[in-house]
Amino acid sequence: MKIAIIGGGPAGLTAAIYALRNNFEVVLFEKGGIGGQAAITNEVENYPAFKNISGFELTNKMYEQAESLGLKTKYEEIVSVKPEDGMFLVKTEDDAYIFDGVILAMGASAKALGIENEFVGRGVSYCATCDGNFFKEKTVAVVGGGNTAVDDALYLSNIAKKVYLIHRREGFRAAHMAVERVKRQPNVEFVTNAVPVRLEGGDVLEKVIVKTCDGEREIKTDALFVAVGQKPNSDCVKGLVDIDENGYILTNGNLETCVKGLYAAGDVRQKTLRQIVTATGDGAVAATNLIMQLLNK
Amino acid sequence: MKIAIIGGGPAGLTAAIYALRNNFEVVLFEKGGIGGQAAITNEVENYPAFKNISGFELTNKMYEQAESLGLKTKYEEIVSVKPEDGMFLVKTEDDAYIFDGVILAMGASAKALGIENEFVGRGVSYCATCDGNFFKEKTVAVVGGGNTAVDDALYLSNIAKKVYLIHRREGFRAAHMAVERVKRQPNVEFVTNAVPVRLEGGDVLEKVIVKTCDGEREIKTDALFVAVGQKPNSDCVKGLVDIDENGYILTNGNLETCVKGLYAAGDVRQKTLRQIVTATGDGAVAATNLIMQLLNK
Repeated sequence: MKIAIIGGGPAGLTAAIYALRNNFEVVLFEKGGIGGQAAITNEVENYPAFKNISGFELTNKMYEQAESLGLKTKYEEIVSVKPEDGMFLVKTEDDAYIFDGVILAMGASAKALGIENEFVGRGVSYCATCDGNFFKEKTVAVVGGGNTAVDDALYLSNIAKKVYLIHRREGFRAAHMAVERVKRQPNVEFVTNAVPVRLEGGDVLEKVIVKTCDGEREIKTDALFVAVGQKPNSDCVKGLVDIDENGYILTNGNLETCVKGLYAAGDVRQKTLRQIVTATGDGAVAATNLIMQLLNK
Repeated sequence: MKIAIIGGGPAGLTAAIYALRNNFEVVLFEKGGIGGQAAITNEVENYPAFKNISGFELTNKMYEQAESLGLKTKYEEIVSVKPEDGMFLVKTEDDAYIFDGVILAMGASAKALGIENEFVGRGVSYCATCDGNFFKEKTVAVVGGGNTAVDDALYLSNIAKKVYLIHRREGFRAAHMAVERVKRQPNVEFVTNAVPVRLEGGDVLEKVIVKTCDGEREIKTDALFVAVGQKPNSDCVKGLVDIDENGYILTNGNLETCVKGLYAAGDVRQKTLRQIVTATGDGAVAATNLIMQLLNK
């Protein structure tokens, strides 16, 4: 039997390893580079069994492992997935394929400010849980006004010497209680009605320049955590599966979507913690449940 | 703030890595050896990023990583955990400690037949998902009569040339549909009313001897998958948290038990798939949620 995995990040690669080890034929579709968001992470220190490794090297090891088990990869973007007579029709721009089951592992993309490109991985991060620890006893800034930004500020307040929370408005979309809690942290300073307009630094980030009503203000910081939202890459299954208000795919505990035989794993699904180690766990669960479902057919 | 982690397998070690990276003080309690069940696994081929590694080496790497972040380990068995004024009193035979939060990661133990000691890791396995792939196109046997045994037989039927399903009774506790499905697999042979009494082999397992009404029968096989049950190591929290009929700890999606500030991760909790990679995912989720809860206090 044949399974399609859409997305070559940690979730998709782990799903592949599990399905291949049960003798399924597995085709992995990847529109960009193998490894997904993890592959463009400079340093990973929280994937168990590696003290420090680049995201590129880590995901490459996962890919080699899947390849050694017989993985086939197609570097094509999937435009649609459709159930058809108990199978799935998976379409790219030019081709169409038939599979017995499909695992959706397209991941998510962090929204960018648009000014930070030069400093990504050199002070700018999109994940406080991943990279906060690199800034022990340093000064950091978080930009954003939602729950993630406020949670990030609280998370970082226990690690960094000083945390700036930069938000373009006065009011926060985040839960009131969470904002109040962060306000009580002595080392967190709120910078509201402020829009980051420029980053400055040498080899690494040194300053965030924000625009306020009173003109520009310079904030000296070692890091900027961008928390202005994430976009799940769920377009190819829009209208087919249930998604939440942000576009994340809903699954049951077995990671099956509302469509039988169609599973979702990793950052693309609605969940509380998006990390490499939770993506790999998802991949194993989705693949194992899909395997058992297909063998039971 | 101070967190106790009970159990030094992949779930506990990952929880430790996550909590330490947020500057929490973490004490890990381990009654036996670091690594839990994973540490006594000869070959691991399904932990993402390692093509092949011994369970001992893999979990040792996780331990070194946690230690490098400041983990403290106490080789003591925990006999009880009690909430006390918003904190937790954690008792060993001789000592008592106070913590702000506790993560239960005591794991589970596979029940043994009692005759297989000599061949564990040399043909005898307690996990089909983990080790099935080592027996591609070979002959394997599964012993047990519950859902796990029947699912294992089906899982293995897609990998092995021949699968024997050995059960001491005629009837199976497993779901009727699952048994019927396995019966339709041409390469699965049922051996019922048969009790394994002896294993034979040289360097590796070669034969399972079963006792039947008609006397002894010799089954030539390359592997024996023992699926006669698992026992979660949840004794130290009996009466405190909700457990299912088999003793597995119940949690919500954040991996919190019914007791606030008390989390469970890994094989000790009720879940569908018990693998190293799902244990590590659990550890990260439990630790991150506990961290955010304590910082919000």
